[in-house]
Amino acid sequence: MSAQPAPLSGTPRTRLRRSRERTVTDRAVLAEILDEAMFCHLGVVVDGAPVVLPTTFAADLGPDAPDAPHGTLYLHGSVAARSLVAAPGQTVCVTVTLVDGLVLARSGFHHSANYRSAVAYGTPRPVTGEAKLHALDLLVDHLVPGRSGTLRPPSRKDLAATTVLALPLTEVSVKVRSGDVNDETEDVGLPVWAGVLPLRTVASAPETSADCDLPVPDHVRDRAKALGTAD
Amino acid sequence: MSAQPAPLSGTPRTRLRRSRERTVTDRAVLAEILDEAMFCHLGVVVDGAPVVLPTTFAADLGPDAPDAPHGTLYLHGSVAARSLVAAPGQTVCVTVTLVDGLVLARSGFHHSANYRSAVAYGTPRPVTGEAKLHALDLLVDHLVPGRSGTLRPPSRKDLAATTVLALPLTEVSVKVRSGDVNDETEDVGLPVWAGVLPLRTVASAPETSADCDLPVPDHVRDRAKALGTAD
Repeated sequence: MSAQPAPLSGTPRTRLRRSRERTVTDRAVLAEILDEAMFCHLGVVVDGAPVVLPTTFAADLGPDAPDAPHGTLYLHGSVAARSLVAAPGQTVCVTVTLVDGLVLARSGFHHSANYRSAVAYGTPRPVTGEAKLHALDLLVDHLVPGRSGTLRPPSRKDLAATTVLALPLTEVSVKVRSGDVNDETEDVGLPVWAGVLPLRTVASAPETSADCDLPVPDHVRDRAKALGTAD
Repeated sequence: MSAQPAPLSGTPRTRLRRSRERTVTDRAVLAEILDEAMFCHLGVVVDGAPVVLPTTFAADLGPDAPDAPHGTLYLHGSVAARSLVAAPGQTVCVTVTLVDGLVLARSGFHHSANYRSAVAYGTPRPVTGEAKLHALDLLVDHLVPGRSGTLRPPSRKDLAATTVLALPLTEVSVKVRSGDVNDETEDVGLPVWAGVLPLRTVASAPETSADCDLPVPDHVRDRAKALGTAD
């Protein structure tokens, strides 16, 4: 029997001030969001102003460190990246957003989006040594499961040029909006169409590099299939 | 003949420190990103820490105010939203990201993403009166062009509950990565598949509200068609 993970606990920052019915405290929903999303937005404060940059991430939801009983989110980038240089020792915000649809109401006011988002706050720590290699594999496998084992391992130069940060998933809020339009009762009879336009991210057929004559491997085909395809 | 818009100009904040070859100074690319993306991430500083939240936006690229000769980005939300309450009078960061694909190299180090992103900094001003109504229409039409004219107009109550902010698109950086994998020359011969897995956001068939018996209107069908569909 596996232990029940603790529910997401509120702090003044993560306790939602509005739309409390959209708050989700089930860690399984957090895990699902972190599994499905491929990108996040990292917010740091530089010279007193916010800087928000898109980046990839990976989540390790097993306990891996004393400060992260609920798992760790890994970020990486160039050692010269302004956002990563600024991050250790200060509070950062990592936001992961999945948009599931446009909610088209009879009034502009009730237009909305169906979405699932996770917002994590914390002070990231640099990851080094064996743990860094593990995190780099997770970062690749998060995009395409099974890929890291097929690659040329990181060189000394690669490692020196790459910063990996770990953010404990301790202070996290999860918000979900799903389902139908919520119009004012008196608007329902108006001659205005209302409904949801579902949205999703899909893949197209993999494009082999110009200098590669190998067939598309199963792990890439499987990834495209899992995302669904459109052409 | 239309005047040539000024190129995007660098400030210490928007001048990219790395990957300068990815910097784009053509305002047409900015316009394209703002047109195609439906959501942005708004970063503000609250109690010294960054807060990053997903939200919708609209862009008005015509000159609409003396401080915005290059256009304005509109944001809106509840008057109670922490991020919007904090925003006026302080510097905010709005990041718009379109992910076009996963770049799968022969080493983890050269894994990347094809993407187009715009990062705008500035001090937003509250929008009131007629300009607020205009901005609210733009916010709806940005999601589904042509929809605002079909809706019940905003009520006094709607307007009182909604904050609209305008951010002049003055300090903006645009970054684009596209095309094939960039592997180390010595890695090209390795028996590792390399290539790009293209990604895009598509719609599924519109879902009419349970309490609506009207047919799906053309503006919604057109939007789904423009996005492309997958089922």
